Amino acid sequence: MSKKNIIVAQSGGPTVAINASLAGIVDAAIKSDTYDTIYGSLYGILGILEDKLINLSEQVEKKPDFINTLKISPAMYLGSCRYKLPDYEDDDATYAFLFNQFQKYNIGAFFYIGGNDSMDTVLKLSHYGKQIGSDIRILGIPKTIDNDLCMTDHTPGYGSAAKYIASSVLEVSHDTFIYSVKSVTILEIMGRDAGWLTAASALARNSYNSAPHLIYLPEIAFDQEQFLRDVKEQLKKRNNVIIAVSEGIRDKNGHYISASSGATDQFGHSQLSGTGKCLEYIVKEAINVKVRSIEVNVLQRCASHLASLTDLEESFSLGSQGVTCSIEGKTGCMLTLQRESNSPYKVSIATADIDAIANEAKSIPREWINEDGNDITPELLAYMAPLIVGEPDVHYRNGLPVYLPVEHLDSEK
Amino acid sequence: MSKKNIIVAQSGGPTVAINASLAGIVDAAIKSDTYDTIYGSLYGILGILEDKLINLSEQVEKKPDFINTLKISPAMYLGSCRYKLPDYEDDDATYAFLFNQFQKYNIGAFFYIGGNDSMDTVLKLSHYGKQIGSDIRILGIPKTIDNDLCMTDHTPGYGSAAKYIASSVLEVSHDTFIYSVKSVTILEIMGRDAGWLTAASALARNSYNSAPHLIYLPEIAFDQEQFLRDVKEQLKKRNNVIIAVSEGIRDKNGHYISASSGATDQFGHSQLSGTGKCLEYIVKEAINVKVRSIEVNVLQRCASHLASLTDLEESFSLGSQGVTCSIEGKTGCMLTLQRESNSPYKVSIATADIDAIANEAKSIPREWINEDGNDITPELLAYMAPLIVGEPDVHYRNGLPVYLPVEHLDSEK
Repeated sequence: MSKKNIIVAQSGGPTVAINASLAGIVDAAIKSDTYDTIYGSLYGILGILEDKLINLSEQVEKKPDFINTLKISPAMYLGSCRYKLPDYEDDDATYAFLFNQFQKYNIGAFFYIGGNDSMDTVLKLSHYGKQIGSDIRILGIPKTIDNDLCMTDHTPGYGSAAKYIASSVLEVSHDTFIYSVKSVTILEIMGRDAGWLTAASALARNSYNSAPHLIYLPEIAFDQEQFLRDVKEQLKKRNNVIIAVSEGIRDKNGHYISASSGATDQFGHSQLSGTGKCLEYIVKEAINVKVRSIEVNVLQRCASHLASLTDLEESFSLGSQGVTCSIEGKTGCMLTLQRESNSPYKVSIATADIDAIANEAKSIPREWINEDGNDITPELLAYMAPLIVGEPDVHYRNGLPVYLPVEHLDSEK
Repeated sequence: MSKKNIIVAQSGGPTVAINASLAGIVDAAIKSDTYDTIYGSLYGILGILEDKLINLSEQVEKKPDFINTLKISPAMYLGSCRYKLPDYEDDDATYAFLFNQFQKYNIGAFFYIGGNDSMDTVLKLSHYGKQIGSDIRILGIPKTIDNDLCMTDHTPGYGSAAKYIASSVLEVSHDTFIYSVKSVTILEIMGRDAGWLTAASALARNSYNSAPHLIYLPEIAFDQEQFLRDVKEQLKKRNNVIIAVSEGIRDKNGHYISASSGATDQFGHSQLSGTGKCLEYIVKEAINVKVRSIEVNVLQRCASHLASLTDLEESFSLGSQGVTCSIEGKTGCMLTLQRESNSPYKVSIATADIDAIANEAKSIPREWINEDGNDITPELLAYMAPLIVGEPDVHYRNGLPVYLPVEHLDSEK
């Protein structure tokens, strides 16, 4: 029997670890006896629909460092998309075309690395495949900095983002402590619906740094009066109060705090100011103190120079185990991480049925947030701590980190 | 003759390299036969005025790693201040008190590590000292991420900030290239009056990354119409346009662009939105394209984990050479860096009279900016390139960089 080929694609928002999973797939597929050519689909599933495939096996042959450099390169080597497949009851032409493509390229397995929306694609493709009696394996490899996927202990990409956030809070603390005047510093951290990333700010605490002193998460309804009481209380205890807040905090009616500012721009249009900016205004208005807000920007999802080695290794393993699972005949599933123990930290890899994962989201359990709703518990700290450990061996040239070139993406079109 | 003691203080805004200069002073003073105890003044000159001195010699004895860890720790180990000395013609009581303190602690030399304002303090103290016939050496050690001090080729702290900015632009490029839809990404970089930091974004360019595609500096009057023409032109050439802009750009009448938005907050107060946000609105209003603005935040001045080794080594040398100069009898001067050659990169250390430095600022020469005023020239690139080279040996514990604890600062008061 001739060997089959595989296609891999990446989808959704960038993380530092999503290329590590791609590297794991490429590495395992090359070492396997089952698969021949590894195709990368450019811009997620769109690459298959638009016949934009690149030959990754050739890349590995041409560049001896391909897999190692890919493993520590940020964002998506293959590009991404935000494309949702139609329901196949409504439109099965798209599906027929996709499976024709699979046949044309002699595909034995398709791997989709992504978050919630990507798992919806895995779900639909595997259902359709089952319906038409296809034996192509369809597998999802998880990734999201948000850590909100179900059925997995945590998600690839989260540990590195958590490490970036904790380091940033520590460095901002050093920056803040230097003046002896009272101040409030607000860090706005990503996370529309779940507070996992913002919670990671607590990892910055150490023997001399108690910041962040307050943590506000989307899981708890935000109360402006309580917030001001919290800040005043903290200002009695210390000079420099540092606050971590999720971009997605909402009031008790479910309205985003960021949307409540009513700021208008020079054209008279209402503009959403960021959540951090909004809290800055609230503090400035109510308390006579120096206030600064900092939006921890997209680097929290793409600063590969500060990735967590634990995260990269796990992401790589999920990719390579995905290949193994496909060879074993598994399909319609997502690879997952199961925590065996915290100390020593130990995880195993399993699979979960894709129906239980797609379009579901996981928030921080209420019992991992303190009673006042403005900090986290030691249990959550213990859960997060092992995920940021270890530093990858990033190479530098002329003072800058060396990442895998992405000239195949059509940015310079 | 009994040995004299020294006092060192830090002032102004944080940089990644200011503690390296402190480490250099401590290291050289300990090794010298001239000086005995090294005092650190907390919160700049205020520590002398308020008698808040710590004994750094003891720290070195107690902690074997003190100097090495100090060298790579962010912000100011001794705290900072924004205190401007009065003119001594108006008020010489402050000066009399300071020199009494020097006498009380048997001080032979005072070192002030700082930027423009700190050099004003060095200037005034050395003038007053000369007037009263004091033989205490008063020396300035430069630092500022802004690179705007005169008489020195570049300033300690600039190289590390430049490296952080260039790395960030490269990582944001990777983050941006993943989608095949047209987009404009604006990075707002620090610099009220000089564009040196924003210019450093150009160091991110490499074989596959042409970003930033447009660079706007405070040295060139900002013209909104020209800006929109520039952006449209770039969008014809490529999918993802990345723009670097100084926070301090001004229109031809000298008005900050950030102040022109007229946004009001929920209380009806006019709020200054950031320059990046302002350009984001301008593009959104005029061009139908996805736009995002990112404020490269205070990490550009405190992210020690990504410091430039060249910068740290030079900062350390300036500190230790400062001690040597004081022993040689120099006073009323600032240590400077003189570039010997670009390739190989070579600098020497000299001193400059403090009168020529204090309260002066250095902008980017017009000939190092392109004719259109929206990019830099190869000469400026060659000037900046060596300054970001090299990575310090940062240690990590539990996934986070290990910095020197600052529990002696009264943040937790």
